[in-house]
Amino acid sequence: MNDIKKMLVKIGSAGKNQDGSYTRQCYSKEYFQAVSSVKEVMESLNMTISEDAAGNIHGIYPGTAANSKSIILGSHLDTVPHGGLFDGAYGVAASLEVLRRIQANHIKLNHPIEIYGFNAEESNPIGGTFGSRAITGWVDLNQPGFKEALAVYGHTPEEIKACKRDFKDAKCYLELHIEQGDHLFNDHINIGIVSGIVGIIRYKVTAIGFSNHAGTTMMKNRHDAMVGMAKLIVAGDKFCREIDDNLVFTVGTIQCWPGSANVIPGKVECTFEMRHMDSAKTDELINKIRDFSKTIENAEFKIEKTVDKGSVPCDAHLMEVIGKAAETSGVSSVVMPSGAGHDANPMGHKMPVGMIFVPSKDGLSHCGQEWTEEADLENGVQVLYNTVLLLDSEK
Amino acid sequence: MNDIKKMLVKIGSAGKNQDGSYTRQCYSKEYFQAVSSVKEVMESLNMTISEDAAGNIHGIYPGTAANSKSIILGSHLDTVPHGGLFDGAYGVAASLEVLRRIQANHIKLNHPIEIYGFNAEESNPIGGTFGSRAITGWVDLNQPGFKEALAVYGHTPEEIKACKRDFKDAKCYLELHIEQGDHLFNDHINIGIVSGIVGIIRYKVTAIGFSNHAGTTMMKNRHDAMVGMAKLIVAGDKFCREIDDNLVFTVGTIQCWPGSANVIPGKVECTFEMRHMDSAKTDELINKIRDFSKTIENAEFKIEKTVDKGSVPCDAHLMEVIGKAAETSGVSSVVMPSGAGHDANPMGHKMPVGMIFVPSKDGLSHCGQEWTEEADLENGVQVLYNTVLLLDSEK
Repeated sequence: MNDIKKMLVKIGSAGKNQDGSYTRQCYSKEYFQAVSSVKEVMESLNMTISEDAAGNIHGIYPGTAANSKSIILGSHLDTVPHGGLFDGAYGVAASLEVLRRIQANHIKLNHPIEIYGFNAEESNPIGGTFGSRAITGWVDLNQPGFKEALAVYGHTPEEIKACKRDFKDAKCYLELHIEQGDHLFNDHINIGIVSGIVGIIRYKVTAIGFSNHAGTTMMKNRHDAMVGMAKLIVAGDKFCREIDDNLVFTVGTIQCWPGSANVIPGKVECTFEMRHMDSAKTDELINKIRDFSKTIENAEFKIEKTVDKGSVPCDAHLMEVIGKAAETSGVSSVVMPSGAGHDANPMGHKMPVGMIFVPSKDGLSHCGQEWTEEADLENGVQVLYNTVLLLDSEK
Repeated sequence: MNDIKKMLVKIGSAGKNQDGSYTRQCYSKEYFQAVSSVKEVMESLNMTISEDAAGNIHGIYPGTAANSKSIILGSHLDTVPHGGLFDGAYGVAASLEVLRRIQANHIKLNHPIEIYGFNAEESNPIGGTFGSRAITGWVDLNQPGFKEALAVYGHTPEEIKACKRDFKDAKCYLELHIEQGDHLFNDHINIGIVSGIVGIIRYKVTAIGFSNHAGTTMMKNRHDAMVGMAKLIVAGDKFCREIDDNLVFTVGTIQCWPGSANVIPGKVECTFEMRHMDSAKTDELINKIRDFSKTIENAEFKIEKTVDKGSVPCDAHLMEVIGKAAETSGVSSVVMPSGAGHDANPMGHKMPVGMIFVPSKDGLSHCGQEWTEEADLENGVQVLYNTVLLLDSEK
């Protein structure tokens, strides 16, 4: 086992299930076991450590130059239920490993190094990327149900408000993460230089037909919401493929009423999710879907936007530095968007962000089969290490 | 209020909800209130009354000719949750009203008249048409879970077995029912002479794709079970319309896994139901669906038959007699299949059956808006009355 794998196993083993997957949900006992492991490493690296009500752990290692801004590294420590070892924990482990090597190599950095282990990045009752949103002040404390959902974890909106931090002293945020897609793996590329995090737009789509007896209502007299919705899903998939290769469209939930085998559905409700770096592409898709829905005779459609997370571009200069670092490290790289959301998303509203991807075997993630080879884990650490050194040489 | 409406209100008012609908589920307190009302009327008509463990009420009024076989009339007394006044109860009320008129007119019938008020015809945990299946011996007493489901109602399979009756002494079964479709109402026809009850074939259809991240999995790499299923639903609807005007196809339930807006569904499960008098038509439909499913690249499909209720043709002679009775009554009529199942279905396995339909306003049923005009209720009683008299004059 190489050094980064050892570090990853040290901080990411909490919540391991019998089937080999990991469950470390936000604010759980297992989550705080991982936080303890991180704390132990941070102590050994002589970092000044703090924790907050949002569940984040934070360490700071001072720089030697007066008034130098911090280079912030990090990722999240929570997992989805039955997730993998790598998603999130790898980025935190790599950040710690980079600082360890800097100290082992007796390198004195001008800039302070800060490392975050974020809580609640994954989907959860208080909203994903919760930890990083808390410190950047992007939590809507007044949203309906938030106070109650937060109370389950023993916290109050006032405590979360107090987590917000001033980032005037921050130079940039760098996050190393597994790709969770199959681009690098399939194309045998070592490193992804992330150009940005795609926007996530989600709609609640409701087909309204007319519920009736499945035996006595002839086909020509039906207003079947299920058939109407099926036509719209097929069309949405087709439009998406026509518009752009990097546009994705997913109908991940569906429900029908009354939901009986012998009754024609009078109502069907779905989520239509679409992601792209460029909102013009997602706009084009929903407009085509909306226009097509008006031609479907089986049902009337209501299309309501429920989520609109704008895309976050990565910083062009940081992308350039990461590219140089990859070159220095002797690994291949490609510029690519991130289809998944990350803590870099909220952080990107406060400072320049850069992200580095390593390959995910078969593109699998959020499952026990999630896997990245040790050599790839090491490539990521090398590139992050060299990126930090290059950035430290700047003002 | 005319006489038949009065009789209907008398026996069918139990379980009336505040919204005007009726809930009289099998074996419920409200159901047995309806049974009590029927009993009261049967007593006033000097019928010999019996009840059984299947929850049916039965009355017999003797004929004057020795060894004459019974003319059996009836329908069911239970309703769907939030159903209407007419579905089922009308047929029982009309049967009682016919006997009341026969007695009021001092007509002496050769044949005995029997009247059934059946329990549990509607969908329920022990299976639809339960009461009529119990007396005809069509309940599978050994099916998994049956004993437990029945125990909820305080009965045992042995008690249900004992409900089975010998029908050697039965001449025929006649059932008057609302159409529950819109054929008679839309075409302004008074009476439907039912040619048979369509077969109900039901399949569990499962689309197996591959669940993956909705952001990082490009469209070309997806195996999206939702899109695959949507294509199959659209195709099934199209094939059904092409095959035959009287064939119906319904996807009344759908479920997807894992069922999260940000995850591509790896599995989607639906019920595909199809009904027709002729099984060649339903066979043709499922074969076309099966063939088409093999061309869908998004997913693999499993198509398993779960329900196969064969169609039951009505007796040709009874149809002819009902036609004459309609003529005598001065009302218009049309021969038509029944898209819904009825107690006539199990009864049809034991004796000749005939069914008479009256119009349902807008084809609505199984809801509080279910409605049949008083004049139509009276037409149905007239035709049933004349049918009984014509049949009584036969051997």
